[in-house]
Amino acid sequence: MTREEFTEEIVAARLAKGLTWQELADAIDRPVVWTTAALLGQHPIPAEQAAVLVGMLDLDESAIPVLAAVPMRGGLPTAVPTDPTIYRFYEALQVYGGAIKELIHEQFGDGIMSAINFSVCLEKKPHPAGDRVVVTFDGKFLPYDWTSAAT
Amino acid sequence: MTREEFTEEIVAARLAKGLTWQELADAIDRPVVWTTAALLGQHPIPAEQAAVLVGMLDLDESAIPVLAAVPMRGGLPTAVPTDPTIYRFYEALQVYGGAIKELIHEQFGDGIMSAINFSVCLEKKPHPAGDRVVVTFDGKFLPYDWTSAAT
Amino acid sequence: MTREEFTEEIVAARLAKGLTWQELADAIDRPVVWTTAALLGQHPIPAEQAAVLVGMLDLDESAIPVLAAVPMRGGLPTAVPTDPTIYRFYEALQVYGGAIKELIHEQFGDGIMSAINFSVCLEKKPHPAGDRVVVTFDGKFLPYDWTSAAT
Amino acid sequence: MTREEFTEEIVAARLAKGLTWQELADAIDRPVVWTTAALLGQHPIPAEQAAVLVGMLDLDESAIPVLAAVPMRGGLPTAVPTDPTIYRFYEALQVYGGAIKELIHEQFGDGIMSAINFSVCLEKKPHPAGDRVVVTFDGKFLPYDWTSAAT
Amino acid sequence: MTREEFTEEIVAARLAKGLTWQELADAIDRPVVWTTAALLGQHPIPAEQAAVLVGMLDLDESAIPVLAAVPMRGGLPTAVPTDPTIYRFYEALQVYGGAIKELIHEQFGDGIMSAINFSVCLEKKPHPAGDRVVVTFDGKFLPYDWTSAAT
Amino acid sequence: MTREEFTEEIVAARLAKGLTWQELADAIDRPVVWTTAALLGQHPIPAEQAAVLVGMLDLDESAIPVLAAVPMRGGLPTAVPTDPTIYRFYEALQVYGGAIKELIHEQFGDGIMSAINFSVCLEKKPHPAGDRVVVTFDGKFLPYDWTSAAT
Amino acid sequence: MTREEFTEEIVAARLAKGLTWQELADAIDRPVVWTTAALLGQHPIPAEQAAVLVGMLDLDESAIPVLAAVPMRGGLPTAVPTDPTIYRFYEALQVYGGAIKELIHEQFGDGIMSAINFSVCLEKKPHPAGDRVVVTFDGKFLPYDWTSAAT
Amino acid sequence: MTREEFTEEIVAARLAKGLTWQELADAIDRPVVWTTAALLGQHPIPAEQAAVLVGMLDLDESAIPVLAAVPMRGGLPTAVPTDPTIYRFYEALQVYGGAIKELIHEQFGDGIMSAINFSVCLEKKPHPAGDRVVVTFDGKFLPYDWTSAAT
Amino acid sequence: MTREEFTEEIVAARLAKGLTWQELADAIDRPVVWTTAALLGQHPIPAEQAAVLVGMLDLDESAIPVLAAVPMRGGLPTAVPTDPTIYRFYEALQVYGGAIKELIHEQFGDGIMSAINFSVCLEKKPHPAGDRVVVTFDGKFLPYDWTSAAT
Amino acid sequence: MTREEFTEEIVAARLAKGLTWQELADAIDRPVVWTTAALLGQHPIPAEQAAVLVGMLDLDESAIPVLAAVPMRGGLPTAVPTDPTIYRFYEALQVYGGAIKELIHEQFGDGIMSAINFSVCLEKKPHPAGDRVVVTFDGKFLPYDWTSAAT
Repeated sequence: MTREEFTEEIVAARLAKGLTWQELADAIDRPVVWTTAALLGQHPIPAEQAAVLVGMLDLDESAIPVLAAVPMRGGLPTAVPTDPTIYRFYEALQVYGGAIKELIHEQFGDGIMSAINFSVCLEKKPHPAGDRVVVTFDGKFLPYDWTSAAT
Repeated sequence: MTREEFTEEIVAARLAKGLTWQELADAIDRPVVWTTAALLGQHPIPAEQAAVLVGMLDLDESAIPVLAAVPMRGGLPTAVPTDPTIYRFYEALQVYGGAIKELIHEQFGDGIMSAINFSVCLEKKPHPAGDRVVVTFDGKFLPYDWTSAAT
Repeated sequence: MTREEFTEEIVAARLAKGLTWQELADAIDRPVVWTTAALLGQHPIPAEQAAVLVGMLDLDESAIPVLAAVPMRGGLPTAVPTDPTIYRFYEALQVYGGAIKELIHEQFGDGIMSAINFSVCLEKKPHPAGDRVVVTFDGKFLPYDWTSAAT
Repeated sequence: MTREEFTEEIVAARLAKGLTWQELADAIDRPVVWTTAALLGQHPIPAEQAAVLVGMLDLDESAIPVLAAVPMRGGLPTAVPTDPTIYRFYEALQVYGGAIKELIHEQFGDGIMSAINFSVCLEKKPHPAGDRVVVTFDGKFLPYDWTSAAT
Repeated sequence: MTREEFTEEIVAARLAKGLTWQELADAIDRPVVWTTAALLGQHPIPAEQAAVLVGMLDLDESAIPVLAAVPMRGGLPTAVPTDPTIYRFYEALQVYGGAIKELIHEQFGDGIMSAINFSVCLEKKPHPAGDRVVVTFDGKFLPYDWTSAAT
Repeated sequence: MTREEFTEEIVAARLAKGLTWQELADAIDRPVVWTTAALLGQHPIPAEQAAVLVGMLDLDESAIPVLAAVPMRGGLPTAVPTDPTIYRFYEALQVYGGAIKELIHEQFGDGIMSAINFSVCLEKKPHPAGDRVVVTFDGKFLPYDWTSAAT
Repeated sequence: MTREEFTEEIVAARLAKGLTWQELADAIDRPVVWTTAALLGQHPIPAEQAAVLVGMLDLDESAIPVLAAVPMRGGLPTAVPTDPTIYRFYEALQVYGGAIKELIHEQFGDGIMSAINFSVCLEKKPHPAGDRVVVTFDGKFLPYDWTSAAT
Repeated sequence: MTREEFTEEIVAARLAKGLTWQELADAIDRPVVWTTAALLGQHPIPAEQAAVLVGMLDLDESAIPVLAAVPMRGGLPTAVPTDPTIYRFYEALQVYGGAIKELIHEQFGDGIMSAINFSVCLEKKPHPAGDRVVVTFDGKFLPYDWTSAAT
Repeated sequence: MTREEFTEEIVAARLAKGLTWQELADAIDRPVVWTTAALLGQHPIPAEQAAVLVGMLDLDESAIPVLAAVPMRGGLPTAVPTDPTIYRFYEALQVYGGAIKELIHEQFGDGIMSAINFSVCLEKKPHPAGDRVVVTFDGKFLPYDWTSAAT
Repeated sequence: MTREEFTEEIVAARLAKGLTWQELADAIDRPVVWTTAALLGQHPIPAEQAAVLVGMLDLDESAIPVLAAVPMRGGLPTAVPTDPTIYRFYEALQVYGGAIKELIHEQFGDGIMSAINFSVCLEKKPHPAGDRVVVTFDGKFLPYDWTSAAT
């Protein structure tokens, strides 16, 4: 079975067993955003932790090496997401992407926010006018740096 | 002149005069991400503040009502951004978008993070292994709510 | 089984049993547009109501938690719809979308009609020249509002 | 000059003169959605009314026959709209399009809502939880009808 | 089984049984273009006629309500057709579409040829230089007409 | 000046002078669909006839050799047309294209309707329920024929 | 089974049996390019010849009427081919397509090279600097000819 | 001026002066397909020959170094060509591309026909049933060869 | 079974057996990049070597002729890769592709780096600031050369 | 003037003055790939060096701050490059991209080759069978690392 097929099984098994993503993350003691992304096929899951999750979700043992392998990443079914919850982040990029780029350059110089040395955090914060979803993208600044391996 | 033409003029004038986005934001006392996005054509700028900016940038007075009008938003030149600094945010969405969706639903219920009742904040945070770009997307949670106007 | 597979089963079972969408909506006492969209995979259906529908349609009980989970939304098979009945709404957007945007801004200010705090209603209205399809999109106005969670 | 060029001029002239779409519509005694769509290049404007608008907006007289000609319609710059205000209608179609299709067929039979024998109306309706944007698409039902001209 | 699956079965069964589209159309006494389009999944087939066709093609009885339901229309596998026989019609639209539009407006006024109150007829006509395929698109003229349901 | 630029001039000049396509076609004694398509940039116009049209439309003489050259054909601004009047023909292809293909093969054998040895005719035909647009595509049948030049 | 499924079987069976395309073509006494294209799903194969091929490849007899039917043509999996061997022809079209068009018009007048009354020939020709692939596209010239069926 | 702008000038100047592509090719003693492609912006033209052509076409002298530089190649305005004369070659690729690939591999082994060590030749050949366009693509066979530079 | 299906089996079997790509390459004494690409479906694998690999991976013997056949190449699931590890190479092409083109022309003349007479090498090189991935693309220079087969 | 406009001027001025990219790079003592990419609009050029280049190319002084600003990167005119010299790198990615990904993971672990801490080097290397283009992509390995800024 492919990673994609195991991902489908994971999604179904989680619902059937009534497990939350938080419970799955707690079971392997990893951050919940990371764990959810990994279970949705976006990160390798080390064999030891994969074994725990495979047990909780009653998957076949053969899933373990597949979950432990680095997957082909990129989880959106279309280039422009159609799901409203995900689309809002794409929209924010359409509206604020240019400004974020300008300000990274103004404050840090030429370079990028790494999406590899990176973490995402999602919090629920109260506000008099209604709870807020606060999503923090936190990546190391990588300056453009023209370096070569020593020869 | 169209809003797009004024945006091109703003970009060129800012460089020619050596003004930072922060200085422009300070001049109108608005957050810097908002101001930068607005000057890049993504938000209307109230006439009074537009007048200040038009003055600083030596634009024609006729820019003021155009800047004050609600623009056609959507600032990326291609559906999938090619600029590396902007692309990393798109990539984060490809890798973490599904997880963020699942966790918004797990923690808040069915609904979305608003991209309208919303702010973005960009910070430079120190870290022993190198400075970090921390971008916070902060939007009101909007639950799916089947409501109609009273008739 | 995935939500998509259950949706296919629902479509087939409804036809085989000769049930109308209205009958299905009445059985769970929910608006018919909402119920139809939900059964076509666009909304979660609370477990209690899902159980009623699963019974009427003779689906497997394992469908209930899947129907109750928030789905990956976005139901059109192509970005531009090819079905004539659906296309007319896309066409209306091509022809009137710009005008609707301008008038929302003129009458309400800068912001959007929410598609989340939202309902759709479809009515058959008589007219001397032939019955009319009247579809009402009714969403809360959301003003652009640069707000952050308290820190 | 092409219709597209006159549309750009109209957009700029309206802002410069501080005219509302409603004032322009009132001046020619036509519905405001129709007038706005027409001025944005989506409908021909009969010469007499075009003359009034050309006068109010100080355009060149040569605009009149161009405004009076049937334009190449289709006003969105991309197949999937990026502007948030317009996108919400596209999103509603992604989420409710399938349901609307099913219910048109259930209530009227096989056919479509015409987008030609059609009107759009935009209203601001109060609601305790905030004003609502109510957009009504009202089109004649056209049944699929296999008819030929007499020979 | 879905409509798409029944369409595949119909295509295979017709070939296996050596039936012509004309014979199938004659059996239900409907025009041959309509019948072929319907059997290819583009129109609902009333149950009585569906029963005849299901019998001739030895399909399962469960096909009848599926064939009788209004399908999701739009039968081309790609937006621009690759099959040469179908492509020529797309090409004709690329070359003559603009002219047809202009002349509909010149002869009828602003409006469209309906594709719903519509029939297609395909004839083989002799010509000294070789037989000709004559395809007639015959649709009711629908003038743009800004009408609303009475309130 | 390129052909595209002359086409824009032709479109504007025709409106300014109030000439119909029919009048332009009559002036050069050619079918009106052909003439309109040619003036919209889809066919070369022999120099003698081009001279007549250039005179009527007050274009520069330098237009004549450009109009007389074979143009780069393909007149739709997007692969899927957005203009409603043109779209209906694309829709008819989506719904009836497969059937037309099958019936060409059933009645003529394997091959195509030529779009080169081809004419289009647009007629206004009366019908008790309203005038009809009747568009006839009339092309020579070309059988698939595996022929080579003699060597 | 559909034509696509039989094509997959043919591809696999040919490899398993170690047959060359040339041997298959020789067995039915047809040109090898034609035969290969036909077996890859691009041409109907008359029943008598299909029977020979079905026998050689050990396919089910039910394949014969499917192979004998005119297929939905268009064999490339993506609009721009990714396979390097096929891509070079697409590249040649990008680089020389405009020139070929100009020279067909200069030497023959306005019209096209038919791809229907057409043959392709592939030869291996020696050259001091290495063997050459020589592919000849040989199609009847079809002049643009505005002809109609007699009425 | 860019190469694209000079290409536009060349196209217009050739028509205005009534020069054939053959005459231009003869003037620089190069094959006509090569010359036409080069003048359409697909090949660099050595300065000496560029000077001849610039003279014949009355272009500015500054064109010479631009024509002599290697251009950004790829001359089709859309990924799938819409011009019928060019489209037929794309169609031939859709129908015969897979077969050509198989036969190159069967006759030569794994590899490609080079589109760089390559020539195209267009001939008009007589045939009792009408003249034929014969286009020969002649490229060196390049076997897949895993070679590295010596280190 | 198709090549694609065998590729999926290979991917799964390698993980299940815990074999590295390097071990598979060593077993057939071929470069590791070549072997990995071949096992991922991008190169034919000669029968003798295929037999070794099929043995190590416990695949069915019927895989051997399929692996030995030239595959339809082009291994990325989307035109723009979404996987971050692969995307970085696409990004490098976006940023440096134009420069590489200019410098190939400046140093070698008009032509290309062959991707057929070509090898890729991936090395891990140390650097004080962290290990580096060094990927070398090494292809024969092919000058544009207008050559034809002798006739 | 925008960066894109200055890039066009640079391209034209370099040809007019007969300067090589190497001479421009030498003048500012920077690597030639970097300099070429920068002059083609892909990197900011520090003001001091920009001044040198602006002098050599006779551009307006106002170019200096524009060249010194971080540009919107992404230099290919289409998502899939059509120029043959650039396309070969895209093709290499199609054929070897999957293998490169697997081997980066096998040799380094989960992570990417940075395209920011990165250099490209192009060399001409001799080989008995013809000179070779050797392009080295040299980027720091970045392991996936779930790190956050200290709070």
